[in-house]
Amino acid sequence: MNQDTICAISTSNGKGAIAVIRISGLEAINIINNIFKPYSQKKISHKEKKQVSVGEIIVNNKVVDEVIVTSFTSPNSYTGENTVEISCHGSNYIQEKLIQILIQNNCRLAKRGEFTLRAFLNEKLDLSQAEGVAELIASENEKAHELAIKQMRGGFSKEIKELREKLVKFASLIELELDFSQEDVKFVNRKELLLLLNNIKQKINKLIDSFKLGNVIKNGIPVAIVGHPNSGKSTLLNKLLNEERAIVSDIKGTTRDTIEEIINFKGYKFRFIDTAGLRSTKNKIEQIGISKTYDKINESAFVLYMIDRTDFNQSKIEKEIIKIKKTLNKETTLIILVNKLDLNSQSVNFMQIKKTPVINISAKKGDGIPKLFKIIESQIEKWNDLNNEFIVISQRHFESLINTTQAIKDIDSGLKSNISGEFLSLDIKRSLEFLGEITGEISNEHLLDSIFQDFCIGK
Amino acid sequence: MNQDTICAISTSNGKGAIAVIRISGLEAINIINNIFKPYSQKKISHKEKKQVSVGEIIVNNKVVDEVIVTSFTSPNSYTGENTVEISCHGSNYIQEKLIQILIQNNCRLAKRGEFTLRAFLNEKLDLSQAEGVAELIASENEKAHELAIKQMRGGFSKEIKELREKLVKFASLIELELDFSQEDVKFVNRKELLLLLNNIKQKINKLIDSFKLGNVIKNGIPVAIVGHPNSGKSTLLNKLLNEERAIVSDIKGTTRDTIEEIINFKGYKFRFIDTAGLRSTKNKIEQIGISKTYDKINESAFVLYMIDRTDFNQSKIEKEIIKIKKTLNKETTLIILVNKLDLNSQSVNFMQIKKTPVINISAKKGDGIPKLFKIIESQIEKWNDLNNEFIVISQRHFESLINTTQAIKDIDSGLKSNISGEFLSLDIKRSLEFLGEITGEISNEHLLDSIFQDFCIGK
Repeated sequence: MNQDTICAISTSNGKGAIAVIRISGLEAINIINNIFKPYSQKKISHKEKKQVSVGEIIVNNKVVDEVIVTSFTSPNSYTGENTVEISCHGSNYIQEKLIQILIQNNCRLAKRGEFTLRAFLNEKLDLSQAEGVAELIASENEKAHELAIKQMRGGFSKEIKELREKLVKFASLIELELDFSQEDVKFVNRKELLLLLNNIKQKINKLIDSFKLGNVIKNGIPVAIVGHPNSGKSTLLNKLLNEERAIVSDIKGTTRDTIEEIINFKGYKFRFIDTAGLRSTKNKIEQIGISKTYDKINESAFVLYMIDRTDFNQSKIEKEIIKIKKTLNKETTLIILVNKLDLNSQSVNFMQIKKTPVINISAKKGDGIPKLFKIIESQIEKWNDLNNEFIVISQRHFESLINTTQAIKDIDSGLKSNISGEFLSLDIKRSLEFLGEITGEISNEHLLDSIFQDFCIGK
Repeated sequence: MNQDTICAISTSNGKGAIAVIRISGLEAINIINNIFKPYSQKKISHKEKKQVSVGEIIVNNKVVDEVIVTSFTSPNSYTGENTVEISCHGSNYIQEKLIQILIQNNCRLAKRGEFTLRAFLNEKLDLSQAEGVAELIASENEKAHELAIKQMRGGFSKEIKELREKLVKFASLIELELDFSQEDVKFVNRKELLLLLNNIKQKINKLIDSFKLGNVIKNGIPVAIVGHPNSGKSTLLNKLLNEERAIVSDIKGTTRDTIEEIINFKGYKFRFIDTAGLRSTKNKIEQIGISKTYDKINESAFVLYMIDRTDFNQSKIEKEIIKIKKTLNKETTLIILVNKLDLNSQSVNFMQIKKTPVINISAKKGDGIPKLFKIIESQIEKWNDLNNEFIVISQRHFESLINTTQAIKDIDSGLKSNISGEFLSLDIKRSLEFLGEITGEISNEHLLDSIFQDFCIGK
């Protein structure tokens, strides 16, 4: 167990009505008793699981602040250690002064994520759950929040652990075979092992598939908006912004020609990509712009093709759409938006274009937007069963899962070609390692460092 | 008692490891019990004075967050009402979501300072103490912090209240006299009243005097640095910045010619004003600059006159210093700094200049700076006895005190000219009002609004 007692400001930087300073470690309660005088005169006790106490921080006979102290004794805390939270007045001076006082009282400033690292080391949560905590704090919309909460509360850890335990059992039986290799006995039922491997493969593939959804939920669903100038692209974006109190930020695209807008809408994060106009041109520079637009289109999950119903040439537009459809990835969904319904309600038909949804909208008034999102949502749900409890959101987990399938493939083909127990054992160990990395049953300092360096201070 | 239950995010804006949301009002505990499922399965009780509980916020069967809930039942809380603090994960999404949930559960968003306003209305603290809370959160250095803490903990409230009570007694006796005016009896011993008035005057004058110190501690002590170009003014500023981890900010002066730097040093906030060079010139524009420098000098509490000992003309400098001394306010302290001790340690004497401290310094190496601050500190202490427990920092209190002395002067002269009880009573009532405004015994909505609008949200 780590001997240092650590401290950090856990609330957001800067002045607030209140701020919270967190202390964790063997000495946390002794340290707070040195500097805190409760109005009740009752010292914080090592015997009570949790306590709350109001009083003053007094150092050198000077009152530093009136505070609320909440304490949890080991192992009943987040970190599993003795933990104290000081809720103080939120001036910068008080926050810094309290940290100074704690350091003078033998606390050390916590590193990023060190409270959660200690929770992991003390087995209060596994590594995947610990990562869920960071995901939770980073998540900015309903869906990302939901997945992070699931991961923090255990997510697929349990399933991974169960699969791994079964593999461990086989591994040890194979080890046993190796010990008796002279006698040529077989403790491991090869058929059962094959069945288990199949089971593991299925479950892992399901998790791998779920990463497509997890990844876009976390990083945003790319949606390209294309169409001729003045077809109403910005009007649509503005309408979406106004519908909900959406969080918006401008991110300059990698090229001059595209601008990304992040919009949290209907619980999802969307990356709307406003592209350069699409038109045939002989101008070289414009051609480059248009070819970049096609690149963006190909990276997108959705392409919204906007048409101004009051000003379009049917056969030209149809040709253009057919051209786009040809360049599209199989995974990308094209949706045609026939805009300016508020100006003209005449119906528009695209005879040439099949299997592509066409929606009559008014970007200005909002007509048709619910239908657009219904189509988008149902498409997203197809990527993965949203009701599936287990959705992978972490690139790290995804990579470990991919590595596991590779190792399992090796066991599989080894079994089929009847390779020796030694090689089988090696392959099983490899897959055990990859699975163990996810939940942290297998970890090393390097891995932990790289995970916790992305945390906030104070968590 | 206010019937609304209010809520607000009390920690600093933005993402943090954790955030705290505060709820106060009659329904606070019922509302938290609606949405919070403690792991212990024990509902928050109205019977316990204070409790801490860990569990989940669950709404529509969805876990919103894992939180720590601390609750205080009326009257054992900051506001005097039922109060609940939710310590949640600090994502923006969770913070906003929880506020949304609370509003759906019949909370109302708190106005600025509304928690403290309620504490005042419920007589948990008086008005001057409530203002102390805002001062505390705003204070950015040791001394301002110290004064704010004193004010929050009661400060001179008790003294003011005691004086006021004695006056109230006299006021009621005089009212009694008026009731019996036909009989021409006197219940009030005029001599005793004069003695009390004298006592009050003395104490109030002491408080009024303390505002000079209180004001500069709060708003910063203005120090003008003057001297010829290259005498080392910026070197001195940089040295001061490096000595302590000082909080520095640049504020453009009102004229192009001066720049202010805020430095928290030795517990005080200083406003160092770097002035245009002083030299005789016939250039009209330069003359304007120099006249502005003289204005700045006159607004300063300290003027540091810097001399480069390796390059100066003794008689010219002496003339210049004598000229400055003539223009100085009686209240401003001039200090001569003979710089570049590191280049040349020859002693320098100013025969012509008397009663002005001369310090040999090296702005580069820091020699002499402790001596400079010793002189500054001892001068500051002369403004007021720093050990005086009662220092006024609020302009509002200062004005009420000034008004009180005027009203007391009127009582005083009324007594001496033997005016009728009616007029005496009016003057006493006026002084009672002014004194009462300080502690809030006399208050109105307008006054409260103007005080609490400067608070943070969530306090």
